[in-house]
Amino acid sequence: MSSILTLLTDFGLFDAYVGIMKGAIASINPALSVIDLTHEIPPQDIAAARFNLMNAYPYFPEGTVHVAVVDPGVGSTRRAIALRLFQGFLVGPDNGLFSGVLDHHPPIAAVELTESQYWRTPQPSRTFHGRDLFAPVGAHLASGIPLEAFGPSIALDSLVQLSFSAWRQTGNEITGCIQYSDRFGNLITNIPGEAIRGYSGLLRVESAQIPIRTAYSDGAPGELLALIGSHGWVEVAVNGGSAWERLRSGVNSRVSIMLKNTYPS
Amino acid sequence: MSSILTLLTDFGLFDAYVGIMKGAIASINPALSVIDLTHEIPPQDIAAARFNLMNAYPYFPEGTVHVAVVDPGVGSTRRAIALRLFQGFLVGPDNGLFSGVLDHHPPIAAVELTESQYWRTPQPSRTFHGRDLFAPVGAHLASGIPLEAFGPSIALDSLVQLSFSAWRQTGNEITGCIQYSDRFGNLITNIPGEAIRGYSGLLRVESAQIPIRTAYSDGAPGELLALIGSHGWVEVAVNGGSAWERLRSGVNSRVSIMLKNTYPS
Amino acid sequence: MSSILTLLTDFGLFDAYVGIMKGAIASINPALSVIDLTHEIPPQDIAAARFNLMNAYPYFPEGTVHVAVVDPGVGSTRRAIALRLFQGFLVGPDNGLFSGVLDHHPPIAAVELTESQYWRTPQPSRTFHGRDLFAPVGAHLASGIPLEAFGPSIALDSLVQLSFSAWRQTGNEITGCIQYSDRFGNLITNIPGEAIRGYSGLLRVESAQIPIRTAYSDGAPGELLALIGSHGWVEVAVNGGSAWERLRSGVNSRVSIMLKNTYPS
Repeated sequence: MSSILTLLTDFGLFDAYVGIMKGAIASINPALSVIDLTHEIPPQDIAAARFNLMNAYPYFPEGTVHVAVVDPGVGSTRRAIALRLFQGFLVGPDNGLFSGVLDHHPPIAAVELTESQYWRTPQPSRTFHGRDLFAPVGAHLASGIPLEAFGPSIALDSLVQLSFSAWRQTGNEITGCIQYSDRFGNLITNIPGEAIRGYSGLLRVESAQIPIRTAYSDGAPGELLALIGSHGWVEVAVNGGSAWERLRSGVNSRVSIMLKNTYPS
Repeated sequence: MSSILTLLTDFGLFDAYVGIMKGAIASINPALSVIDLTHEIPPQDIAAARFNLMNAYPYFPEGTVHVAVVDPGVGSTRRAIALRLFQGFLVGPDNGLFSGVLDHHPPIAAVELTESQYWRTPQPSRTFHGRDLFAPVGAHLASGIPLEAFGPSIALDSLVQLSFSAWRQTGNEITGCIQYSDRFGNLITNIPGEAIRGYSGLLRVESAQIPIRTAYSDGAPGELLALIGSHGWVEVAVNGGSAWERLRSGVNSRVSIMLKNTYPS
Repeated sequence: MSSILTLLTDFGLFDAYVGIMKGAIASINPALSVIDLTHEIPPQDIAAARFNLMNAYPYFPEGTVHVAVVDPGVGSTRRAIALRLFQGFLVGPDNGLFSGVLDHHPPIAAVELTESQYWRTPQPSRTFHGRDLFAPVGAHLASGIPLEAFGPSIALDSLVQLSFSAWRQTGNEITGCIQYSDRFGNLITNIPGEAIRGYSGLLRVESAQIPIRTAYSDGAPGELLALIGSHGWVEVAVNGGSAWERLRSGVNSRVSIMLKNTYPS
């Protein structure tokens, strides 16, 4: 059984919040291997959390427990949940941050976290469920406690969803949207790279028309280009610069691609 | 025996300083589990180091060694020290950064770090005692070397203190001060949350009058509110925003609370 | 045998890229101890990567594998390489980022990474060799696979070099250049500290004349001073401030030192 636990939060690294979560984990099982996905999710940005977790999930070994805490509803009535998937486990608030992973990796079972003997304290803070509830549950789960012990089953179709307008292809035209802007300013669409692999063509976003290339270095310095990015999505980049700064195009912006009739390019 | 060692510094994550400290630790005992509390303490800000270490300390298992290096006096005559407490150990410069932990967890024994066989080199750098002295001593301590081996005992009442004006309660009025501003802009006072639990009332800081709530989400978006924060202190926050940006109120600013005569609220 | 693997990249901590590399490593060998050197190298800044890796290398135990990915040529024809040194291993692109380490620690053997059974996938992404190639090779190397298994030997004198104008001494005058500016704004020259140890004198950079001191705290607050920094190089600092902000002097700027005829100072 794997003993890896990952953490994804919007707590930042300025304060000791993340260190404190790791103290809570080590107090339960100091032998767990804890890996940070990122703690720099913009505060309360569930869409950014969804994207990062979706992309990281496939690269972890079977049995990994992913604890994700971007939780604007902490202290309200939103549910705290844990899910079992074929390849791993998810622990966090039921606010849609898992919906990207679940689009590609269907859940097998879900529970609401109600059994307080697995929390750090039966009276958790109103503001820091990461420390008091999610990290301890993740640590127990990674240590072998079965999912069902943490609370009652909940219906899989009751999980909160976060969705984008779907991508679609009609003949040579593909439409979709921007789903994420990374820190290099690369604009990542929700169009899978497979849809354009081997083709040439043009991508349109805002008023720009951008050629499809195969590597960053295929463009002249400063040139906008579209390519299949490292996550497997079609993305818009600038060789040696920031596509976001050039286009100022944000999450949900409409994107269209016109493929040339030749294959391969 | 625990083999956890935490690190708290003002070195940032831009340069490899923290990685180098971990190399020095791994060279002594690669099996130690090293946990970062934070490395983003503002440069030379002993008060911020004191606050973060004080808050993180209780969440770590017995025997944890905490190495803290915010050290404006490096290369001068300030002492290098290590302390044993009931629950763990502290290693760092004697400049007051431990005084928050020690307010709540009295020390049992203290030594000055003079035994250079436990340093990385008998001729440490004048500027990087984190690497050459504190991290190595921490690694040896976490590996089981007894505190007394690192140097002569020093009097517990000789430790450098860093103190704030104490909080106090007179009837329904409580006074205190701001002791920390976190990266979300929450202003954290030195008034314990227990003093207001279950009460309603108003908190005053600068010219603002702020209602006491029980969760961030109890306030309208943009509203200033006072609540018991995740660290257990009364704090001032804005639902979805930054109290620091609204009030521009810094560490040591005076705070007063007027409780209503009703209990519970 | 050591099982330590270090990571140095320009990926930042905003996205989950670093976490994903660790997932790829854990999928190969979850028992490896992974240490971050830094992920905040300015994007594509090979000189900054060179400096940080050079400084960190000596502090790690024998057998440590250092994976460094600052890789503006990813997807082009630059070689992917691994090197064996007396004390450890280096894995990354052949673009000069190892040349600082190699100036002081000559390589014993070098291979080009062509054996795709040690990659995450035989069809690596065009844009993320850190995940698909370098991290997996590093994990296999740290797990005991011999260097020669990863691909054919390459000539040691064919490795890409990145070099600065050398420092030199003529009588009492020493010349050199700035090779790095750290996040505190300390300007680090390529003049070894041993060249000035025990001497007094003046350092000139741009139009400033700066006295040689022995510790940051030896200068008045705000005073520019030159001293032997924690990495062992002569550096220019401001007590409580940033030399970079005062001088605006960048990498490759010329520096000269005039030593006084007295020894020791």
